Amino acid sequence: MQSLKKIFLNDFFVLGLIVLNAVIIFIDEFDVKLKALDYLEALITLLFMGEIVVKISHYGVRKYFGSNWNRFDFLLIIVSLPSLAILFYGDTLMETNIFLTLRVLRIFKSFRVIRFMPEADSFIKSIKRALQASYIIIFGFVILIFITALISCSLYKDIAPEYFRDPIVSIYSIFQLFSVEGWYEIPNLISERSNAMTAFFAKFYFSVLLMGGGILGLSLVNSIFVDAMVSDNTDELEEDVKQLTKKIDSLEEKIDQLLKSKK
Amino acid sequence: MQSLKKIFLNDFFVLGLIVLNAVIIFIDEFDVKLKALDYLEALITLLFMGEIVVKISHYGVRKYFGSNWNRFDFLLIIVSLPSLAILFYGDTLMETNIFLTLRVLRIFKSFRVIRFMPEADSFIKSIKRALQASYIIIFGFVILIFITALISCSLYKDIAPEYFRDPIVSIYSIFQLFSVEGWYEIPNLISERSNAMTAFFAKFYFSVLLMGGGILGLSLVNSIFVDAMVSDNTDELEEDVKQLTKKIDSLEEKIDQLLKSKK
Amino acid sequence: MQSLKKIFLNDFFVLGLIVLNAVIIFIDEFDVKLKALDYLEALITLLFMGEIVVKISHYGVRKYFGSNWNRFDFLLIIVSLPSLAILFYGDTLMETNIFLTLRVLRIFKSFRVIRFMPEADSFIKSIKRALQASYIIIFGFVILIFITALISCSLYKDIAPEYFRDPIVSIYSIFQLFSVEGWYEIPNLISERSNAMTAFFAKFYFSVLLMGGGILGLSLVNSIFVDAMVSDNTDELEEDVKQLTKKIDSLEEKIDQLLKSKK
Amino acid sequence: MQSLKKIFLNDFFVLGLIVLNAVIIFIDEFDVKLKALDYLEALITLLFMGEIVVKISHYGVRKYFGSNWNRFDFLLIIVSLPSLAILFYGDTLMETNIFLTLRVLRIFKSFRVIRFMPEADSFIKSIKRALQASYIIIFGFVILIFITALISCSLYKDIAPEYFRDPIVSIYSIFQLFSVEGWYEIPNLISERSNAMTAFFAKFYFSVLLMGGGILGLSLVNSIFVDAMVSDNTDELEEDVKQLTKKIDSLEEKIDQLLKSKK
Repeated sequence: MQSLKKIFLNDFFVLGLIVLNAVIIFIDEFDVKLKALDYLEALITLLFMGEIVVKISHYGVRKYFGSNWNRFDFLLIIVSLPSLAILFYGDTLMETNIFLTLRVLRIFKSFRVIRFMPEADSFIKSIKRALQASYIIIFGFVILIFITALISCSLYKDIAPEYFRDPIVSIYSIFQLFSVEGWYEIPNLISERSNAMTAFFAKFYFSVLLMGGGILGLSLVNSIFVDAMVSDNTDELEEDVKQLTKKIDSLEEKIDQLLKSKK
Repeated sequence: MQSLKKIFLNDFFVLGLIVLNAVIIFIDEFDVKLKALDYLEALITLLFMGEIVVKISHYGVRKYFGSNWNRFDFLLIIVSLPSLAILFYGDTLMETNIFLTLRVLRIFKSFRVIRFMPEADSFIKSIKRALQASYIIIFGFVILIFITALISCSLYKDIAPEYFRDPIVSIYSIFQLFSVEGWYEIPNLISERSNAMTAFFAKFYFSVLLMGGGILGLSLVNSIFVDAMVSDNTDELEEDVKQLTKKIDSLEEKIDQLLKSKK
Repeated sequence: MQSLKKIFLNDFFVLGLIVLNAVIIFIDEFDVKLKALDYLEALITLLFMGEIVVKISHYGVRKYFGSNWNRFDFLLIIVSLPSLAILFYGDTLMETNIFLTLRVLRIFKSFRVIRFMPEADSFIKSIKRALQASYIIIFGFVILIFITALISCSLYKDIAPEYFRDPIVSIYSIFQLFSVEGWYEIPNLISERSNAMTAFFAKFYFSVLLMGGGILGLSLVNSIFVDAMVSDNTDELEEDVKQLTKKIDSLEEKIDQLLKSKK
Repeated sequence: MQSLKKIFLNDFFVLGLIVLNAVIIFIDEFDVKLKALDYLEALITLLFMGEIVVKISHYGVRKYFGSNWNRFDFLLIIVSLPSLAILFYGDTLMETNIFLTLRVLRIFKSFRVIRFMPEADSFIKSIKRALQASYIIIFGFVILIFITALISCSLYKDIAPEYFRDPIVSIYSIFQLFSVEGWYEIPNLISERSNAMTAFFAKFYFSVLLMGGGILGLSLVNSIFVDAMVSDNTDELEEDVKQLTKKIDSLEEKIDQLLKSKK
């Protein structure tokens, strides 16, 4: 029993299971239709559940759920539990939407591997910091996409229904435009279907949108990322300079003492 | 009366109206043809006008227009006023250009939401600073696009009229080339229609243009953005170092006193 | 005579001529076939020559050619002189290659406007610095493109002759791949024409090339640009810290004096 | 004999050979079918072998292989040796896979030119540093591509087999999506083949993938590159500040002496 506990608390064993799980799903997705693979995959899910039980009994409920990584693991395993149903109802569910969802859910367990990445914590931290630094920009982008999508929908609904038929389709088209990819196809299509004046305005309008949204926008996101990264370096320097200032303050005190003793 | 004033001065009420306004336009653009939506939208425009009147009477004309955000609000509401005409002449104007313009104008009110973005002021400030830092580059780009468009027009007017028929079309084509998107279609088309020598020159010419305009240019814009962002950090540090210098200056004075008292 | 000299030495007059010259060429390229425009354009070229004569006689040969901007102007005007021939032989040369070249040459005068850009000198300086900082990278890229073009030509010459027929065509295809634009069309074409194994290798090979050349490469260029920009800021700071060090050195000397006077 | 040694130890002679080798292969790849070129190329390979022998005898085995560049040279020459077989079996091997491989192998010798690039060492060092700084990100990207490829394969295997037929094809499609190039073709294809709900989900799913993988991901790589570059500058500054701190420490000691002598 004790040795079983040791095995489940061993990171290499768990990592091995995660990799094995990924490999099985990888092979299974080639449509090999090997029942054995499904059984093996279900076994790994059960082993993961065992791991949770062992860890909670070892660390205690509070300490176990106090760790972000443990909560992450717990969530991913719970999410993949329904996929065990494939084993029993696989043949009857085949080709249904539920079956598809179950197959997708079991893949999520593979995300557990992130925990074992070298410097995973600092990686997650730097992504978090970058997202925090740019959440206003993302917010601004969402507003910009929403409003320009409404304007574009209002303007080009009838001329280019494939892009601006309704506000939701427009939002997707504006997003596509802001990704720069294939942006000029939109004004070109409008130009083909309208008179010279409208064509000219459409090209001007979408060029400005591209400049504003695509080029400048991405640069802004980019620069804020860089800012967050670089400020690290200067933070260290600022610390150094602060230490220096303290030292000089103590120097001043001592010289003041000297001056006082003179009088 | 007083309570009405309170409501109009309440930011959450105004924000609620703006969001409601956006939602109504969003639904309306699906061509639901609900007269009620148009009436509601017109009501919101009237409420916005009421807000202006209340705010001006509360703060006074001078103080109200002293705020950039107030002027921004005022402009957006004035611009959307003509859209009220849809209510009365909607059916007769339908499908005309004036009708289209009126429908677009009413969307502009939605931009008022920018004011309520978290850290809106610092966001606007950072965009302004970035634009100021790069306005020379934008100026240089406009000149580069203009002159290379003239050169390309002069060279390829007859070979590729769809891209370089006249200077205005050329400007658009050069802009498209500088966005990197689909750039190689231009030299490929020219190659198809001309001899090996001209084809080779065209490929070389547009490759150089792409390198100069697209890659290096975007990098420059990018780096200046980053520069503006990063200089913030070092500005703080510079301030720190300046403080330090002052402290050392005062230290020196004190030591000078000590030296003098010795003599 | 003196007043004529004054006019030619006046920057606004010269800028006006440059802009007028650009506007005339812009209109002329619409194929308006107005003889008057050609005469006007030729007159401006002559006025530019007059400007050179006046400036050389005013500043002296040595001082005139001592300025980079003057040499730039001189070169552009000399280059556009042959275009005067259009006036006399325009009708007979029409549609010939010489005629085309002459028409292009006259556009180059427009580049003189760069001199009048706000902060033109600092703009040129920052582009120069950026190019200097990245010339090794550009050099490395040229080598990378050349060698990978040879390898790709050797591998896919027979399978995809439209991309890798000979080394020169290969260089252009690799350049296109590194611009990311339409990169996957190349491995897709090769996949269609070959067996599964070759298709797999082609996809792998071009993905790696794209990663190496396109993504990482552009990032490197980018980062060096940024480096050159940002180092400016820290240069100032370094200067500040150096000043501080000097001050502290002088402080130390004074304290040493104090210590000596004690003994 | 001594003069032969001198020639082989002369960098310009070696560089000349490398360039000549590249030029010969460049010409040969035009399918000129000149036997003389093959002989010349083989001669250069033999001269390179001679160079190795001379250098090892001159510097000694240990010192020769102690240099990274020498090991790089040695490897490239060994790799290209089999290509000598073209000379003897060229006609019989023609059009076989072995022949193709041999032709490719001989190109690798050209990479030796990297050693002669100005500031090659610092260039290699900066690439190494950049790769080290971003290897976790590359690792994270590989995991992200692998897992999202599995999910996409599971979801869209039947709807879009050309993109998600099996996990390997999926990995390639996700990589293509993350390069932004042509990303929207994937959701568009799925939309065409499925109902409105699935189409909407596909567009949402791939837009989020694009944002996560493409835009944010590239920005992260980018910012870490920049970080590595910029930290150089601040490293210098930090050194300066550390020197300053030492100086102030010694100042403090002296003032302490002064204070002690007072008592």
